[in-house]
Amino acid sequence: MKRNVLIIGAGGVAQVVAHKCAQNNDVLGDLHIASRTKSKCDAILASVEAKKAMKVDGVFKSHALDALDVAATAALIRENDIQIVINVGTAFVNMSVLDACIETGAAYIDTAIHEEPDKICETPPWYANYEWKKRDLCAEKGVTAILGAGFDPGVVNAFARFAIDEYMDEVKSIDIVDINAGSHGKYFATNFDPEINFREFTGVVYYWEDQQWKETTMFASGRDWDLPVVGTQRAYQSGHDEVHSLATNYPQADVRFWMGFGEHYINVFTVLKNIGLLSEQPVTTAEGQEVVPLKVVKACLPDPSSLAPNYTGKTCIGDLVKGTKDGQDVEVFVYNVADHKEAYEEVGSQGISYTAGVPPVAAAMLIAQGDWDAGTMKNVEEMDPKPFFTILDEIGLPTRVEVNGEDKAWNA
Amino acid sequence: MKRNVLIIGAGGVAQVVAHKCAQNNDVLGDLHIASRTKSKCDAILASVEAKKAMKVDGVFKSHALDALDVAATAALIRENDIQIVINVGTAFVNMSVLDACIETGAAYIDTAIHEEPDKICETPPWYANYEWKKRDLCAEKGVTAILGAGFDPGVVNAFARFAIDEYMDEVKSIDIVDINAGSHGKYFATNFDPEINFREFTGVVYYWEDQQWKETTMFASGRDWDLPVVGTQRAYQSGHDEVHSLATNYPQADVRFWMGFGEHYINVFTVLKNIGLLSEQPVTTAEGQEVVPLKVVKACLPDPSSLAPNYTGKTCIGDLVKGTKDGQDVEVFVYNVADHKEAYEEVGSQGISYTAGVPPVAAAMLIAQGDWDAGTMKNVEEMDPKPFFTILDEIGLPTRVEVNGEDKAWNA
Repeated sequence: MKRNVLIIGAGGVAQVVAHKCAQNNDVLGDLHIASRTKSKCDAILASVEAKKAMKVDGVFKSHALDALDVAATAALIRENDIQIVINVGTAFVNMSVLDACIETGAAYIDTAIHEEPDKICETPPWYANYEWKKRDLCAEKGVTAILGAGFDPGVVNAFARFAIDEYMDEVKSIDIVDINAGSHGKYFATNFDPEINFREFTGVVYYWEDQQWKETTMFASGRDWDLPVVGTQRAYQSGHDEVHSLATNYPQADVRFWMGFGEHYINVFTVLKNIGLLSEQPVTTAEGQEVVPLKVVKACLPDPSSLAPNYTGKTCIGDLVKGTKDGQDVEVFVYNVADHKEAYEEVGSQGISYTAGVPPVAAAMLIAQGDWDAGTMKNVEEMDPKPFFTILDEIGLPTRVEVNGEDKAWNA
Repeated sequence: MKRNVLIIGAGGVAQVVAHKCAQNNDVLGDLHIASRTKSKCDAILASVEAKKAMKVDGVFKSHALDALDVAATAALIRENDIQIVINVGTAFVNMSVLDACIETGAAYIDTAIHEEPDKICETPPWYANYEWKKRDLCAEKGVTAILGAGFDPGVVNAFARFAIDEYMDEVKSIDIVDINAGSHGKYFATNFDPEINFREFTGVVYYWEDQQWKETTMFASGRDWDLPVVGTQRAYQSGHDEVHSLATNYPQADVRFWMGFGEHYINVFTVLKNIGLLSEQPVTTAEGQEVVPLKVVKACLPDPSSLAPNYTGKTCIGDLVKGTKDGQDVEVFVYNVADHKEAYEEVGSQGISYTAGVPPVAAAMLIAQGDWDAGTMKNVEEMDPKPFFTILDEIGLPTRVEVNGEDKAWNA
């Protein structure tokens, strides 16, 4: 039984994590939230209070913290007897927060791979460049670290494990499909920080096929997917974290990730990229001012959090897993559908933040209850998916399965 | 007989003017070129020398000049015994250069209306806001001022006058069509300074129909034109100087201007405009830097003069004039076709600069010879077009006519 949670970060996903922790503080114990800017934490606490989200009376405190400072993070953990850390800060702080957990024995959860600011799309598998180097140390010290426990990566890893375990003798391919069929009503906007969003799409797209890493580029490989609720949607192969752990754990399967983009998004992206406006390299204006174009584009675009109140429509994220069972081909689609408006009404965030923020809280509850308290470092597909789905069903992200022409709950 | 020319400006059009003046210095006398940045004038002189453009031995000198300074401009005119000024500087200096001409008695030629930096698309007719206020003074002092003597405005005004005089008893409509069917091989570029180019397209589009001013917006009114050499091309109603003088001189005719744009140009323009990247109002980046987005877009786009070496294809600019003759409907298309590559080989500029820069030199030659030395202020359609066409035929921009299914030289 581990208790007392520290949330690191104060963006859109942290807001969802805070609300969901509050709604389950009977299981999770004391709650803390820390980021470099304490006022952003306080705004999240005020929102939790406004929604009366705390299930039982309890602690929820805000702190100022530079999460790159291992000693300061370890001190905050010790001072507050924290046993579970949910890291939803910028991707640049993963390794320092993990070090603080190893030092203090607290369990560690994150939702995305570590990144260094000056590097984009390093060599695959991405986890081997940073996180997995600490795996032996976690095992030695008995520290639980659950990597990539958002929706994708995270829930989609559990979808793959579940489809293979339940329906197959042998897996042949895992295609993860992420569709946002919602509408924010703006001419153009990104669902995350535009700088991070565009950064994700300007590098190499890695995927795993025929037991080797292959490369393509963004928008080069697209296909239409006929999906539950959201209908037919076009998605394009993109680079994504979960491809890198699933390819390691299921090397016999092809592993690909597909992200949905409308023609309008692609057109705007293409215009901005080709003109050079997505560049991180500064240009000099005729008046002699040095400016990074991408930062100007960001300043012109809507703040992603401003989209939430008017966001309508649904997301559909799932895994199409193919394999064989008793010598017969079998095909299973495991998925979730979430609703932007419902997310906003419940926790004040849009659906993209909601799907990313709910799963790490489920993981924290599983660690608190003991089911996922592995005492070492794990990716999500290495853990039993059933208790994860059970909690996700209860806290807002139900899992469904399409198999043999039937659409049903995962446990029906 | 007037002699000795001062060219004001040192951009792409000034380069063409300089070469053409040099090629005709037996008629024009001493040549001078002045701009705020003398080194740009010197680069043009070096190009004139490299092409051995001077027809006869003679003077061609560069000067530093702030053309907003009337006294300095008048002094330069007097010191060098200049009798003809060709103003191809920024549109912001027209009125100060005109004042210097009125003060010294030199003839004045320009190629575009006066603009104030903080005003876009003032009330029609545009010439009445600035230039025409000086008409009586020019007449009183006997100063020749030929307004808008580039291609459009300029040659297209003469095309209209010619079509009406030669072929009609009554004119009903004048549609000016400007097509650049050339290709510069870049993803996107503007043929003039991007800041000025985009400025032209963000305001109201004025046109003259049913004897009154009407308004539309850019890209709202488009149609396909079947044209000589360049074939079928889509053009959109745009605001342009010549509409404002032709509507005044031929109020019984509808007067419209059409500019050719490909879908790609319109798409890029639309994306940039909708995101706010064409705004002249500063935005503040997340890091606190104040930046004007349009200036960053300009810094990212190719320098227009860099397009010239690889520009291929042709321009077609002409007037479709409709009216009646002896009670019968008549329709005449008067036009010119120019070639980007030929322009570059002759004067080191692309075709857009070439068509704008050759006509004011023809106007200067007509003033030097006496034909157009009006002793007052005139728009081009108020002058005899035939000697103008004769010189343009000789110096690189021949005029052709399509009438009754026949395509021929204007004087065939």
